[in-house]
Amino acid sequence: MPEFKTLLVEQIGKVAHIRINRPEKINAMNRDFWAEMIDVFGWVDQTDSIRCAIISGEGKHFSAGIDLTMLGEAAGQLNMDIARKAEHIRRHVLHLQHSFNVIDQCRKPVIAAVHGYCIGGAIDLITACDMRYCTEDAHFSIKEIDMGMAADVGTLQRLPRVIGDGMMREMAYTGRPVYGAEAARIGLANRTYKDHDALLAGVMEIAQSIAAKSPVAIRGTKEMIRFSRDHSVEDGLNYIATWNAAMLQSEDMKIAMAAHMSKQTPEFAD
Amino acid sequence: MPEFKTLLVEQIGKVAHIRINRPEKINAMNRDFWAEMIDVFGWVDQTDSIRCAIISGEGKHFSAGIDLTMLGEAAGQLNMDIARKAEHIRRHVLHLQHSFNVIDQCRKPVIAAVHGYCIGGAIDLITACDMRYCTEDAHFSIKEIDMGMAADVGTLQRLPRVIGDGMMREMAYTGRPVYGAEAARIGLANRTYKDHDALLAGVMEIAQSIAAKSPVAIRGTKEMIRFSRDHSVEDGLNYIATWNAAMLQSEDMKIAMAAHMSKQTPEFAD
Amino acid sequence: MPEFKTLLVEQIGKVAHIRINRPEKINAMNRDFWAEMIDVFGWVDQTDSIRCAIISGEGKHFSAGIDLTMLGEAAGQLNMDIARKAEHIRRHVLHLQHSFNVIDQCRKPVIAAVHGYCIGGAIDLITACDMRYCTEDAHFSIKEIDMGMAADVGTLQRLPRVIGDGMMREMAYTGRPVYGAEAARIGLANRTYKDHDALLAGVMEIAQSIAAKSPVAIRGTKEMIRFSRDHSVEDGLNYIATWNAAMLQSEDMKIAMAAHMSKQTPEFAD
Amino acid sequence: MPEFKTLLVEQIGKVAHIRINRPEKINAMNRDFWAEMIDVFGWVDQTDSIRCAIISGEGKHFSAGIDLTMLGEAAGQLNMDIARKAEHIRRHVLHLQHSFNVIDQCRKPVIAAVHGYCIGGAIDLITACDMRYCTEDAHFSIKEIDMGMAADVGTLQRLPRVIGDGMMREMAYTGRPVYGAEAARIGLANRTYKDHDALLAGVMEIAQSIAAKSPVAIRGTKEMIRFSRDHSVEDGLNYIATWNAAMLQSEDMKIAMAAHMSKQTPEFAD
Amino acid sequence: MPEFKTLLVEQIGKVAHIRINRPEKINAMNRDFWAEMIDVFGWVDQTDSIRCAIISGEGKHFSAGIDLTMLGEAAGQLNMDIARKAEHIRRHVLHLQHSFNVIDQCRKPVIAAVHGYCIGGAIDLITACDMRYCTEDAHFSIKEIDMGMAADVGTLQRLPRVIGDGMMREMAYTGRPVYGAEAARIGLANRTYKDHDALLAGVMEIAQSIAAKSPVAIRGTKEMIRFSRDHSVEDGLNYIATWNAAMLQSEDMKIAMAAHMSKQTPEFAD
Amino acid sequence: MPEFKTLLVEQIGKVAHIRINRPEKINAMNRDFWAEMIDVFGWVDQTDSIRCAIISGEGKHFSAGIDLTMLGEAAGQLNMDIARKAEHIRRHVLHLQHSFNVIDQCRKPVIAAVHGYCIGGAIDLITACDMRYCTEDAHFSIKEIDMGMAADVGTLQRLPRVIGDGMMREMAYTGRPVYGAEAARIGLANRTYKDHDALLAGVMEIAQSIAAKSPVAIRGTKEMIRFSRDHSVEDGLNYIATWNAAMLQSEDMKIAMAAHMSKQTPEFAD
Repeated sequence: MPEFKTLLVEQIGKVAHIRINRPEKINAMNRDFWAEMIDVFGWVDQTDSIRCAIISGEGKHFSAGIDLTMLGEAAGQLNMDIARKAEHIRRHVLHLQHSFNVIDQCRKPVIAAVHGYCIGGAIDLITACDMRYCTEDAHFSIKEIDMGMAADVGTLQRLPRVIGDGMMREMAYTGRPVYGAEAARIGLANRTYKDHDALLAGVMEIAQSIAAKSPVAIRGTKEMIRFSRDHSVEDGLNYIATWNAAMLQSEDMKIAMAAHMSKQTPEFAD
Repeated sequence: MPEFKTLLVEQIGKVAHIRINRPEKINAMNRDFWAEMIDVFGWVDQTDSIRCAIISGEGKHFSAGIDLTMLGEAAGQLNMDIARKAEHIRRHVLHLQHSFNVIDQCRKPVIAAVHGYCIGGAIDLITACDMRYCTEDAHFSIKEIDMGMAADVGTLQRLPRVIGDGMMREMAYTGRPVYGAEAARIGLANRTYKDHDALLAGVMEIAQSIAAKSPVAIRGTKEMIRFSRDHSVEDGLNYIATWNAAMLQSEDMKIAMAAHMSKQTPEFAD
Repeated sequence: MPEFKTLLVEQIGKVAHIRINRPEKINAMNRDFWAEMIDVFGWVDQTDSIRCAIISGEGKHFSAGIDLTMLGEAAGQLNMDIARKAEHIRRHVLHLQHSFNVIDQCRKPVIAAVHGYCIGGAIDLITACDMRYCTEDAHFSIKEIDMGMAADVGTLQRLPRVIGDGMMREMAYTGRPVYGAEAARIGLANRTYKDHDALLAGVMEIAQSIAAKSPVAIRGTKEMIRFSRDHSVEDGLNYIATWNAAMLQSEDMKIAMAAHMSKQTPEFAD
Repeated sequence: MPEFKTLLVEQIGKVAHIRINRPEKINAMNRDFWAEMIDVFGWVDQTDSIRCAIISGEGKHFSAGIDLTMLGEAAGQLNMDIARKAEHIRRHVLHLQHSFNVIDQCRKPVIAAVHGYCIGGAIDLITACDMRYCTEDAHFSIKEIDMGMAADVGTLQRLPRVIGDGMMREMAYTGRPVYGAEAARIGLANRTYKDHDALLAGVMEIAQSIAAKSPVAIRGTKEMIRFSRDHSVEDGLNYIATWNAAMLQSEDMKIAMAAHMSKQTPEFAD
Repeated sequence: MPEFKTLLVEQIGKVAHIRINRPEKINAMNRDFWAEMIDVFGWVDQTDSIRCAIISGEGKHFSAGIDLTMLGEAAGQLNMDIARKAEHIRRHVLHLQHSFNVIDQCRKPVIAAVHGYCIGGAIDLITACDMRYCTEDAHFSIKEIDMGMAADVGTLQRLPRVIGDGMMREMAYTGRPVYGAEAARIGLANRTYKDHDALLAGVMEIAQSIAAKSPVAIRGTKEMIRFSRDHSVEDGLNYIATWNAAMLQSEDMKIAMAAHMSKQTPEFAD
Repeated sequence: MPEFKTLLVEQIGKVAHIRINRPEKINAMNRDFWAEMIDVFGWVDQTDSIRCAIISGEGKHFSAGIDLTMLGEAAGQLNMDIARKAEHIRRHVLHLQHSFNVIDQCRKPVIAAVHGYCIGGAIDLITACDMRYCTEDAHFSIKEIDMGMAADVGTLQRLPRVIGDGMMREMAYTGRPVYGAEAARIGLANRTYKDHDALLAGVMEIAQSIAAKSPVAIRGTKEMIRFSRDHSVEDGLNYIATWNAAMLQSEDMKIAMAAHMSKQTPEFAD
């Protein structure tokens, strides 16, 4: 189990639970955090015994978003030629995006469990996750607009696929808070739970149920959904046919079939 | 009227009602079924007097999905070179996909009326339809995940355009059942009905209302929606302008206009 | 302030309020209207002191859609070679589309405030807006289908991104009315208001809150959402990184940060 | 070996040689021809012992293109509503396109051997082939322009990928003849041969060399080239990685490797 | 015939000949020129009696490219917030691009006749044309690189479709001159002529031959080639089928057919 | 200067010269090589004083392609579930592709200088470079086909953009050698040189000329060409306008302009 400065990580059965762990800073995302996201999801992706991950916040909130000192950096205080500074900023933004792309590209489903504040960069983070669940008092806000900038770490690209176009623009232009119940109604969260404990228990149950499925089938399903988001239906159909050309030769299908016939629970290799 | 082994077909006015007819097997999709889908939707597409189609299930359920014996086939038990077997499987999957693509490509709207089980391959089928209506006790499940495989006949490509990304992933990863009320809430069904009779009556009314419209206008509308799904807004605008360059020279517009002026019901040629 | 035949325009603070002003014709869209849409949104786009726009209808309704006399024109009564007439129609449709594309392309958010009828071409108009709000008695209908034609000024391209695919097809094939409450439920409107006064007051409040944000940030956010609609997530991430390379060098971020630190309201240059 | 009215077909080793066989009509493409193209390339695709195909013309010319009587049909002499006739024509053109798409989609390379006239529809045909070789006196012309129409069976879509954009437009706008030497210079043909005998001998040698390769490798290579034509480099790289995930498990690689080590000629299964 | 400050325009039969007319400034593109390009190609596009256009340079050269005083403007000397200046520059560049996009979008073929210098912006111009012809002493150079900037008015987008990727990069990175013979060899020009007189005579002959074709067929052909450049083969095939659904109902096909039968020269309406 | 096992690297002025250095193995690409490609091009990309790179082969040849022992690995000898092995292979191929993607993504132009054998994987390598130059006796061959596999490290994706579609397929299906003169004729190389010394001298001169240009302009040019390859003309035009919004605020333009006015050689900062 790797060790991190800004994250608490534990493995429960075949599920990794990652907690953002700077509660005294409302889990604000500092330089260490951005680097450790790459490491932790590299570990999730590479570790065969992990089949699903949960990300939540330690303390009273999920996260207040990017640490404001880093925001200044992105804007670049350097006394540089404008063009060279622009190139520097562009690459810095691409670098930050990479820290959440690893969630999107991780072969295993990643579930966000949100309570309290989920602000700015935290929205970028949870939209890169597969699914979102929250407490009734969760407080979502695309706060970048109040920092004088367009959100640039994924929200504006991924959120339109999650919630309706009209409500997404309202959130992005106004930065107004959306609470748990409304989040569930517009599809930002799949479901709300009464409090943090209920949330973690509920999400763990979902994660364990996913972890019990064939990992070959889960990884194929995630890859297909990710591909379909950005490609035509026809391209998607051709891709799954090509993918399953190998994957349907898996042992997992025989195991699943046998379990189905004998009404038993199948056990799949990692 | 063509005859089928696995389907019951009748034409009511200008509406074709197609019933999957293997109730003793919960309407499981066997080899005949996959072939007959191509034939029946070819017939719907080619027959000018049909302007809309309904697909429903005979007996207590819509369908339990692919016949498990066929699933084995797709996986290929043949003792073959792995690469050649992969190519064989790939082409088999493309072949099965074709049986539902004909619904998507059919020039006339196709409505799914779902009651009871709608499982696995049946989800692939209904997502290729234009609209879905169901009973309150309808039971939807992306069951492929429990067979150790990623769904490969259209669900993962078409469903994300129908329901929210987050709920879609939950259904695909967990295979959990979604019932009528939730289906309507997340957009999987447009509406629920109390029972099977109410469902069929309601859906027939919608189908007849569509069948009374100008067939030129309906076919153009379906083609545009299908095209827009996979193309940019700009490409879509150019396509409808090019399409309507011919279609606005139709007699139907004059008939519609005259009926509108005289407050009468227009009658359009097939 | 420019003057128009079919529009009433006023500027309230940094918000432009555009009223369609042919109440005696249920605000039907005549030839002047289509031309003036281009002019008025050119003015909104070019005028630095305007940061957000509202479009609403004068009188009892939002709009009954295209003036039927124009519809005839699009179909072309000219006694021409069919091919040349087709080319003429195609270019006429592209020309009409341009009158709503200016809303989509306007760098500032445009909000539709809908009461009463919102029919046919009016649906094309509001789907080109950023957000839609309505009264409870608002009445939405894709009426083109009853004129014997596929809608060709934007509805079929933009609406699928706003509401669910299934309900969108039902509206497009049947032309059936959708009222305020259902519009809000399916995402066609963001929210309903009790009556016209409450609607205008509510929408003005949202518009003013947007107008108080950094205009650099708002314009960047709109551009990103528009781009993301038609491009892959990866292309969108690269685009925002390139865009923000210059935009994060803005004074607005410093102003926002300073205001944030001092708990004051920031004031941004136009 | 199937029998055809308009084609002569023979199998030489693992190569199919298809001759267009209406020499008295300069191999003009009549209704039978368009249907038989689908049949013959279905046979090539399905027959495991065929690994490469050649298409050439019997008599003094390759082909004069579409039979003019069919052209009239496409334009539709029927006394019909303009919109319904347009739909009829559109589907007829799609139908004709299908007859050449089967070449493009055939899993095995198809080589065009051109001598004499290669006019109009014949250009559509050869651009759907993998490679083109010709005699010095071959005469290529995009003759559709002189029939008052834009070529619609594939030339304008596929030729730009074969020759330079500038020369392609010159050929398409002017219909001027291009002879063997120029064809080779601009990339329309890979090479010229002195006369018809030398052409057929040369092309057969190339075809046989392709037929001796691993069919798994050849089919994968054709699929990748076809895919790359219409997708980004990144999508193409992902596709070949997914494809080869199964195909590199082939026996053919072991056979090739062993032959390479022992300096012998490998023999691959069909 | 419209009048211009920077262009000489004449109509010869159905061909418009546009001469860049600032020979004392080596036809450098000043502010008037960029505006007049939009006007002149609007006129070409709208005037039915014009079916093809030629663009050439008055005096000893085609053009030295953008007037350097304008280049400074694009870079923006204004003392502005960097972000607002960036937005200003971006819109200025888009504005300049529009002046050459009108060539690309003009429904009639536009031919560039190049002699002497064709430098910087002039390369952007000619790559927006359909075809290019030149004298042996023509001198092509992507000179922007020596002005410290990436070419931004079309060269880097359109040239890769005209010449090979490798040579295009060499020209773009080094700015080295390419003369007539090499231009023809790499496909930048379709052909070279001995001198300016021979060039103009040769190009006029090609233009007149295009002008004698069916304008319906020529416009369809240009639209298809333009569309194919940016879309998949499959999308292109569908588009031409939809386009020709109307266009094959033209009188021009009957006229062409009749002329073909009677071996006479067809005369097509504008 | 970093040190490598399989590469010799030197910096000459602002040009990095990278030599593949396993001459006793005909520069076959072993495991170290694939890893070191990532390192060396990371170094080229990050080192501001390097503005252009050359890659060539030490000894008598450029490279014989992938080391055959690695090929076996890719195919996976492991005794594993077929599906899991497929996933392993897929990821291994993606990993190898990354080693050449770094050339494509490197912000500075990379030039391949080819003499002697350039076989299999070496073709994948040089097609990821910006430009290719070779000796007359250079010997190019897509040798993968003779190993029983479809090339999967970039050739089939990038080569079609470099040479004509027809010749590319001939090379890919037959694996036949193409020598220097033919390579130059079909665009695979930009030019041939008499021998290795002349080649290196000629390529160094080109590289130094590129290194003397504005690095802001060169990086922008490479990014635009790379983007244009996979996007529409319209998307490309919008991208360069957005990019240049910042880059035209560079000091380099002022320096270039001043040098142009004073007829002196400009000196640009790194």
